[in-house]
Amino acid sequence: MKLLRHGAPGSERPGLLDERGVIRDLTGIVPDIGQTVLSDAGLSALRGIDAGSLPEIDPATRLGPPVAGTGKFICIGLNYADHAAESGLDVPPEPVVFMKATSAMCGPRDALILPRGSTKTDWEVELAVIIGHETKYVSEADALDHVAGYCVANDVSERAFQIERAGQWTKGKSCDTFGPLGPWLVTRDEAGDVQDLGMWLKVNGETMQQGSTRTMVYGVAFLISYLSQFMTLHPGDVISTGTPPGVGMGMRPPRYLTAGDIVELGIDGLGQQRQEVVAD
Amino acid sequence: MKLLRHGAPGSERPGLLDERGVIRDLTGIVPDIGQTVLSDAGLSALRGIDAGSLPEIDPATRLGPPVAGTGKFICIGLNYADHAAESGLDVPPEPVVFMKATSAMCGPRDALILPRGSTKTDWEVELAVIIGHETKYVSEADALDHVAGYCVANDVSERAFQIERAGQWTKGKSCDTFGPLGPWLVTRDEAGDVQDLGMWLKVNGETMQQGSTRTMVYGVAFLISYLSQFMTLHPGDVISTGTPPGVGMGMRPPRYLTAGDIVELGIDGLGQQRQEVVAD
Repeated sequence: MKLLRHGAPGSERPGLLDERGVIRDLTGIVPDIGQTVLSDAGLSALRGIDAGSLPEIDPATRLGPPVAGTGKFICIGLNYADHAAESGLDVPPEPVVFMKATSAMCGPRDALILPRGSTKTDWEVELAVIIGHETKYVSEADALDHVAGYCVANDVSERAFQIERAGQWTKGKSCDTFGPLGPWLVTRDEAGDVQDLGMWLKVNGETMQQGSTRTMVYGVAFLISYLSQFMTLHPGDVISTGTPPGVGMGMRPPRYLTAGDIVELGIDGLGQQRQEVVAD
Repeated sequence: MKLLRHGAPGSERPGLLDERGVIRDLTGIVPDIGQTVLSDAGLSALRGIDAGSLPEIDPATRLGPPVAGTGKFICIGLNYADHAAESGLDVPPEPVVFMKATSAMCGPRDALILPRGSTKTDWEVELAVIIGHETKYVSEADALDHVAGYCVANDVSERAFQIERAGQWTKGKSCDTFGPLGPWLVTRDEAGDVQDLGMWLKVNGETMQQGSTRTMVYGVAFLISYLSQFMTLHPGDVISTGTPPGVGMGMRPPRYLTAGDIVELGIDGLGQQRQEVVAD
């Protein structure tokens, strides 16, 4: 299934994308795409519904992030060897973990707002994992059973805020609209081999990132197991698993986003995003 | 007012501490201590209630964190000059910002669980700010108007996870039970001068930290204004403002928590916490 949330920011309603690519409304069927709806039982119940019987939604409707009730937006840094190299950093001996503010989450086609004073806003196409079950001290072998599904993420990053403004990356990662997610959550049974998905990102039509989840240093199952040694993961938590080469900071000279730029990105089978960059 | 949340973890109900020190139930009066209840209008409406008419709650009842619906648990690092010195680090040129997982939040007397593999779990008494209104690009002069209230926080930290396990502090700051908050939220009108509050922490009765918010490098109003340049703060967001000297990592030799230890901490006018340390 492809689950989504449609409507105005902050008042999105649940929906799905049917096999013909039509958005269908799940209002009244489930409260939202979150909590127990993300469990195996919850997803199984949704699969039993005749999608054709659900109301159609205008395809031009705004989509929000495809998950509600996210408590943690966890990101993995330097998780592609080539990206670490372009950043001038070694591959870390174990995963680098940081948090993005959940208030940075937005829809896949929302405007990307440059925060005031920004001079180095950059892009990062990433595979995001959405947790379906409470997860603590899980083994790598069992880890994927705790996944509800996957989606595309853009881990937007202001490099000056992240790196040049005193310790820790939080300030450059958490600005409003710096976490576009979606267009939909693809349930794990339909996502295929998540360690073999092509991914790409373009700015104004020019390809900047082209890679594959094959070259992740730490794979999805390892990351879930690893994180669960430090903290309990809850349904709706999002883990963004790092970006392949091609970010603006790695270019010579570096290239950053300015108002009017169009960012497009996608991952095989998970859909595409498009953001217009605007000044705050 | 002193607002609190009482009951079992995950199903706390709203309450308050009356002027005689009796816990009173606010179930049915407000849905929880969060969202619009934290606004000036929400708090003003609560002040109009005759506390004596509310049901009494057993004083031995468990208390949860005194705020619900927290989207961000933001922490400030190295915000007391003496603490930076004991950590062997310079005072930063601007605030160091990091996130704690909201899933680390717990009640003020809940057990402090040592995560598996922990050898360096440490304490940090801190003044926490609870945001009452949506806050973006606010001036320092107006910043305190956006505060609902204040509470005691223990920014529990596993130093090996934080510092020795590859980049960023998240892993050592976000473990379950690493964010005791409370016992209550003291509304800003009753908290006095928050830049002149004594604070202390004891382990097994021995004083480890004794300081005052007077020696903060960056004060509360500055921090709110500063953070709001990077991201929108929402009602219920928590900002923990850093710790004075006396953490275990700064001792010669360092001293860390082990199962059976009792941690007690408090801030003038904001109440006290007590945690028993247990193994996971």
